[in-house]
Amino acid sequence: MEPTGLWLIGARGSVATTAIAGLLALRARMVEPTGCVSALPRFDHLGLPGWDELYVGGHDIADLALDKRAELLTESGVIPHRVFEAVRPGLSDVDAEVRPGYHPATHQGSQADAARRLADDIGEFAARNGLARVVVVNVSSTEPVFPALPEHGSLTALEAAMAVPGRTVLPPSSVSAYAALRSGSPFIDFTPSTSIRLPALEELARAKGLPYAGSDGKTGETLVRSTLAPMFAARALNVRSWSGTNLLGGGDGLTLADSEHAGSKLASKGRGLATLLGGDVTAPLHIDNVPDLGEQKIAWDHVSFEGFLGARMSLQFTWTGYDSSLAAPLVLDLARFVAAAHRAGESGPLGWLGFFFKDPVGTDEHRLSEQFAALSAWAEAR
Amino acid sequence: MEPTGLWLIGARGSVATTAIAGLLALRARMVEPTGCVSALPRFDHLGLPGWDELYVGGHDIADLALDKRAELLTESGVIPHRVFEAVRPGLSDVDAEVRPGYHPATHQGSQADAARRLADDIGEFAARNGLARVVVVNVSSTEPVFPALPEHGSLTALEAAMAVPGRTVLPPSSVSAYAALRSGSPFIDFTPSTSIRLPALEELARAKGLPYAGSDGKTGETLVRSTLAPMFAARALNVRSWSGTNLLGGGDGLTLADSEHAGSKLASKGRGLATLLGGDVTAPLHIDNVPDLGEQKIAWDHVSFEGFLGARMSLQFTWTGYDSSLAAPLVLDLARFVAAAHRAGESGPLGWLGFFFKDPVGTDEHRLSEQFAALSAWAEAR
Amino acid sequence: MEPTGLWLIGARGSVATTAIAGLLALRARMVEPTGCVSALPRFDHLGLPGWDELYVGGHDIADLALDKRAELLTESGVIPHRVFEAVRPGLSDVDAEVRPGYHPATHQGSQADAARRLADDIGEFAARNGLARVVVVNVSSTEPVFPALPEHGSLTALEAAMAVPGRTVLPPSSVSAYAALRSGSPFIDFTPSTSIRLPALEELARAKGLPYAGSDGKTGETLVRSTLAPMFAARALNVRSWSGTNLLGGGDGLTLADSEHAGSKLASKGRGLATLLGGDVTAPLHIDNVPDLGEQKIAWDHVSFEGFLGARMSLQFTWTGYDSSLAAPLVLDLARFVAAAHRAGESGPLGWLGFFFKDPVGTDEHRLSEQFAALSAWAEAR
Amino acid sequence: MEPTGLWLIGARGSVATTAIAGLLALRARMVEPTGCVSALPRFDHLGLPGWDELYVGGHDIADLALDKRAELLTESGVIPHRVFEAVRPGLSDVDAEVRPGYHPATHQGSQADAARRLADDIGEFAARNGLARVVVVNVSSTEPVFPALPEHGSLTALEAAMAVPGRTVLPPSSVSAYAALRSGSPFIDFTPSTSIRLPALEELARAKGLPYAGSDGKTGETLVRSTLAPMFAARALNVRSWSGTNLLGGGDGLTLADSEHAGSKLASKGRGLATLLGGDVTAPLHIDNVPDLGEQKIAWDHVSFEGFLGARMSLQFTWTGYDSSLAAPLVLDLARFVAAAHRAGESGPLGWLGFFFKDPVGTDEHRLSEQFAALSAWAEAR
Ligand SMILES: NC(=O)c1ccc[n+]([C@@H]2O[C@H](COP(=O)([O-])OP(=O)(O)OC[C@H]3O[C@@H](n4cnc5c(N)ncnc54)[C@H](O)[C@@H]3O)[C@@H](O)[C@H]2O)c1
Ligand SMILES: NC(=O)c1ccc[n+]([C@@H]2O[C@H](COP(=O)([O-])OP(=O)(O)OC[C@H]3O[C@@H](n4cnc5c(N)ncnc54)[C@H](O)[C@@H]3O)[C@@H](O)[C@H]2O)c1
Ligand SMILES: NC(=O)c1ccc[n+]([C@@H]2O[C@H](COP(=O)([O-])OP(=O)(O)OC[C@H]3O[C@@H](n4cnc5c(N)ncnc54)[C@H](O)[C@@H]3O)[C@@H](O)[C@H]2O)c1
Ligand SMILES: NC(=O)c1ccc[n+]([C@@H]2O[C@H](COP(=O)([O-])OP(=O)(O)OC[C@H]3O[C@@H](n4cnc5c(N)ncnc54)[C@H](O)[C@@H]3O)[C@@H](O)[C@H]2O)c1
Ligand code: NA
Ligand code: NA
Repeated sequence: MEPTGLWLIGARGSVATTAIAGLLALRARMVEPTGCVSALPRFDHLGLPGWDELYVGGHDIADLALDKRAELLTESGVIPHRVFEAVRPGLSDVDAEVRPGYHPATHQGSQADAARRLADDIGEFAARNGLARVVVVNVSSTEPVFPALPEHGSLTALEAAMAVPGRTVLPPSSVSAYAALRSGSPFIDFTPSTSIRLPALEELARAKGLPYAGSDGKTGETLVRSTLAPMFAARALNVRSWSGTNLLGGGDGLTLADSEHAGSKLASKGRGLATLLGGDVTAPLHIDNVPDLGEQKIAWDHVSFEGFLGARMSLQFTWTGYDSSLAAPLVLDLARFVAAAHRAGESGPLGWLGFFFKDPVGTDEHRLSEQFAALSAWAEAR
Repeated sequence: MEPTGLWLIGARGSVATTAIAGLLALRARMVEPTGCVSALPRFDHLGLPGWDELYVGGHDIADLALDKRAELLTESGVIPHRVFEAVRPGLSDVDAEVRPGYHPATHQGSQADAARRLADDIGEFAARNGLARVVVVNVSSTEPVFPALPEHGSLTALEAAMAVPGRTVLPPSSVSAYAALRSGSPFIDFTPSTSIRLPALEELARAKGLPYAGSDGKTGETLVRSTLAPMFAARALNVRSWSGTNLLGGGDGLTLADSEHAGSKLASKGRGLATLLGGDVTAPLHIDNVPDLGEQKIAWDHVSFEGFLGARMSLQFTWTGYDSSLAAPLVLDLARFVAAAHRAGESGPLGWLGFFFKDPVGTDEHRLSEQFAALSAWAEAR
Repeated sequence: MEPTGLWLIGARGSVATTAIAGLLALRARMVEPTGCVSALPRFDHLGLPGWDELYVGGHDIADLALDKRAELLTESGVIPHRVFEAVRPGLSDVDAEVRPGYHPATHQGSQADAARRLADDIGEFAARNGLARVVVVNVSSTEPVFPALPEHGSLTALEAAMAVPGRTVLPPSSVSAYAALRSGSPFIDFTPSTSIRLPALEELARAKGLPYAGSDGKTGETLVRSTLAPMFAARALNVRSWSGTNLLGGGDGLTLADSEHAGSKLASKGRGLATLLGGDVTAPLHIDNVPDLGEQKIAWDHVSFEGFLGARMSLQFTWTGYDSSLAAPLVLDLARFVAAAHRAGESGPLGWLGFFFKDPVGTDEHRLSEQFAALSAWAEAR
Repeated sequence: MEPTGLWLIGARGSVATTAIAGLLALRARMVEPTGCVSALPRFDHLGLPGWDELYVGGHDIADLALDKRAELLTESGVIPHRVFEAVRPGLSDVDAEVRPGYHPATHQGSQADAARRLADDIGEFAARNGLARVVVVNVSSTEPVFPALPEHGSLTALEAAMAVPGRTVLPPSSVSAYAALRSGSPFIDFTPSTSIRLPALEELARAKGLPYAGSDGKTGETLVRSTLAPMFAARALNVRSWSGTNLLGGGDGLTLADSEHAGSKLASKGRGLATLLGGDVTAPLHIDNVPDLGEQKIAWDHVSFEGFLGARMSLQFTWTGYDSSLAAPLVLDLARFVAAAHRAGESGPLGWLGFFFKDPVGTDEHRLSEQFAALSAWAEAR
């Protein structure tokens, strides 16, 4: 495939850094593409962009350079030492393609100005590297819930409001989504933030004929839930309660410890379970910040269910994962799949990518195997 | 549908007793059909035999009457007290339809004689109750592994050997399968024993145009395994080891504690995992008899897997179930589905029933959701 | 020993009902004293009151009679059917000794009046049954945290305030504790409520020469914690985080779901862990109401610790218990031990009973084995 | 304290290498003595040999040098990179003090010759380094069970048999123990092998006035068991079954996968549980070799117990540890404590060191907190 850009909002975060380090290691044939769905044989015929054909840049509001961040991830066990040593120079090259993100607290002027600058960054990146297209992926920090405003309802109203200096009509994630679309780029939201999920932005995507996908990468507890819940349904077993606790350290743990931010994450997790099992399941859910776990995430779920003649049974599981190790290959997968969709002229929400998300746009299907079947069917049809 | 017989080999065992008590309770509208797959709305249009249209009889070598066995299961928490009180008289009625099973140690004469007697029992049961058909289900104790013999290769050779007085050419489960087919009945093997899985018996089923299904009901650890393993595969995660321990009391625990019997069970469990994940997974598996658990079965599985850049992660689960509560509704489901298949003229191994089995005949598919899709597709096509 | 009274505040609750049903079953020699610490051989020489020598009465604000409550506990699996059938008449006899508790919402007059009435109930119970002493045990619902007031500082100030009609200077648990002491009875608090833990009430206990014990029965997660935490300390292993989740149904689950009530429970649990491990351990803790669990309580704890050269390791456990089954025998134990202490003339807080409590009075020792050693030492010295 | 030798049988194994690397890091003040019991404040007054006062040498039959072995342990996460880099030169120095161990397959001549050579190695090490004493610790591979022979009954008979060329009257561990005693050194067995546990060798220890300790370091599942089992006993809860599964990779996993070797390990684990709980507990136990776990060991235990009125409850735990990280500091602790005992003139089995062992010599106490109390009492008395 042609040279393809991967533009990361939050390019110096854990997920982004792991994805970039991994891409460099894949390019150097140092590692196998373990965890990369797009590298499964069934997708071979699609001619997805190769590891050498992906060019990376992005926005971030943090200053810590990619190689420093990668060093921390190496100490936490996410990146192996030998990989880190090998990719360190490449990381510095990518870091040179990272531009300052939009931060509402430091920004002067209108949100329209901000968006224009962000879009220009993307455009210049494409031009500089001779790219056929750039896929923009949001992997920046989860935002607090942003209030719904009437201006979100139509593009005209939104752009009018964005033009007012000092007015904050959009959260940062939506400013980034707007800028991506304005630059003519497909957009993927890997976070639970608002981003593209506003009528005005969906209108813009349609108007520009651009595809988009989201929301919130499905990497741990929810991945397992969306696998197990259909088992109970298929066996006519009656799930009575599904309780969950998540322990996480890392940057994400710190952000989500703040209950306002956790709001959007918990909502996004909860929506899936309700759809999978129906509405009357008791489902308490907690996210705790446990800094000593570092990049590890540990989730415990307890499922209580009823069988024949009312027999009470249970299933409990403990998941011990590295969130960034799980998320990073999916970011690469999504960029590759969406690039192919864009090349093929698809636009609007890509429901067949629901496999990757906790809260998928363009579909109501949450069952993992059905989602994988949809992805496979899309590939077979090409 | 027409009156349909359900003939249980092992009619006084835990699974059989729970199935019969449950059927009586369903007939009395005392309970919901929780755990009954065939009662899901998607199968409504099939016109499966109703709870009132199923007539039960069977063979067993034990003398403890069904109501006494049910009393024990009530004390163990498998059958609720109020259900037991209500169905006790009905259990005695069914017990009157139970005939002595074939036991190699006490039987005099040839295996042909034994099979003839068993087939006659089934035929008389059908005639006495005016049944359109009888579905025979093996839920008798797991047998030790039986050696392969040349006579198993063809029906002619087998029947010649069966005619020799005192010769034991078949294990009891296969004598029962032979008798079922000779009586013109479809056959289901819910156990890991040899039963119908011999070329000579498959030949007989084909010759008589009869459908059959098996083997080994998938109710606990394997159910979860066949749900979770495809998740790792779809996500390109590399499972390195999958270790399992099963603790069980009850009759089955006692039988399987004898390592010779456990052989067939462990083999049947192992086959599935190898198919689901490929051959190079370390997969130690244990079955322990822990009498104090009563009818409960507890399984712990630990899955170690590798993700992006070689990150080491794990998933572990603990399953706490009542095996008989899980198995009993499936016995009713299988009888209903196979009755419909027989009425529709299907014959040979019913691969679309693989959903119910650890070691399915007629298919190599072990993934639960694909198996459910196959079952649903069969139903949709009717 | 002489006839001894056991007066239960919350006499119709789960813990009380299980304790009473069990006492009746023990008296009838139907069951073994499993879970009764006071029945261990090492306490044989103490001459504790026998099962026949304990007379039960109490206060409650609920109307549901003891036999009805016991029926519910039987359905939930806490009381076996055969025990329930046998003790049902005895439960009605005890229920006749239950008097209306003090409820601030319905009470008219001063708290002094209320306390006088409660004390009279206890005194009449003792007289009516010819009891040598009555031990009062609070097993009523956990209260919301009650604000500290200056009047709590001295008995004179407290009694002046209690005399003011309509004034609520004490929470119900403390009114009960006051009444118990005024009636000349030792007092035990099995709950995390304020009850006797006010300087004014401690002054009263001392003045009357009465012993008391508390607070908050140690039955589940905390029991295991106080057993495991010393292991890490003795092995110089550095616990970094200890995360806990409790799932509970039952009356207690409902009460504690209300976050105001959970306050005192969570505080009482947390104090122990901090003392056992030192203050810098991350220790998120949740209590969730999961009604379908009924009387079961499930706790999951995840302990992350550091060993030699900083190696990161973990221990996780899942506890599945019936809270009332665990608490009830301890209530009988406490009544027996405190009766012996009272007979022996002990007064003030009984620190050697810390073994039974999450938040022990009269001692700072939280390690279970040291607590058991203290209890054993007390017994040996007699 | 005076310069003290630590002579390791199995000096190039995982436990030994971790202990040596750790000792060098402690000496360099690079790390805290986490996991070192002897570094707890309560042992400060004992004047145990300091990290600078311990000199290390040993026997091994493997050729892989200590720094190479340490490199592997660094890759497995047992030794941190920065520690490895810092101690690498020191490891080579220690490796120069490692002498060939005794291997029955390659040895020529009598076992007496072999023992003499081993004893001389120890003596020369002491002389060369001017050591006040050498403590010998067996951390070599677990041996298969060795048959009991009449010659084990007395020192005279044993030495006569040892003198016969080609005769194998002792397993290697016992040859090492004999050599240690002959060289005048105290001996510690950290493994479940036979080693010093023969009447003839105990006779020799007494005759030479030497102390010894063992057997089988208590580091994982058994550590937790000996902590939890007393909780059930103290609460009069009736443990019905205690089932365990151990998954381990590493050298030890490979050795124990061989069922003959596992024999001594399983026996040593089982003895403790029986003593702690009484004999009628169902206690299936498995050790599985799962190579992909590397140096990690994962143990799952399921405890089923009965409470008041027969209520059935359970506790299950999963332990995830690095065996070598847990064992290594204990090897240093034991060397220090035994050196102090030797200096103080103690001889025979040191029961007060039972805290460190699965199968302690010189005591029947298996409860961890009582063992810690015994160790503390010994220290206080000095
Ligand atoms: N790791 C997973 O498994 C996973 C799964 C699903 C979703 N996510 C989501 O992915 C996102 C990233 O996770 P992470 O662990 O990498 O978090 P992180 O905190 O390590 O990285 C986030 C990065 O975003 C940057 N950032 C914040 N605001 C920005 C802005 N306005 N513009 C540009 N950059 C900005 C931060 O400076 C930081 O570098 C989070 O929203 C998380 O919820 C992660
Ligand atoms: N319960 C489950 O979840 C489950 C799942 C898969 C398979 N199975 C299989 O189902 C079978 C029944 O399990 P169960 O728990 O009811 O066992 P069980 O021991 O309670 O019952 C088996 C019954 O078979 C009878 N029997 C033995 N030999 C016979 C013979 N030759 N002819 C007729 N009857 C005979 C026995 O007398 C007994 O009544 C077992 O083979 C088991 O492996 C059960
Ligand atoms: N079950 C355990 O393991 C355990 C352990 C520690 C502490 N506790 C404590 O024991 C107490 C009882 O637990 P439970 O499960 O029996 O609860 P429950 O809700 O079943 O019973 C509480 C009873 O107290 C009564 N009550 C409420 N206010 C009262 C008042 N003012 N005067 C008299 N009676 C009153 C209620 O009517 C009810 O009958 C709770 O405070 C609980 O926190 C229980
Ligand atoms: N790691 C733990 O937590 C733990 C706990 C209790 C007991 N142990 C015991 O400690 C011992 C060592 O464990 P490890 O993990 O280090 O094993 P390992 O296999 O890594 O090391 C054993 C070493 O012993 C050497 N050896 C074998 N036979 C010898 C002989 N005859 N003379 C001298 N050296 C010999 C081997 O070459 C090897 O270097 C094992 O017996 C194990 O059961 C370990
Ligand atoms: Na099963
Ligand atoms: Na160990």
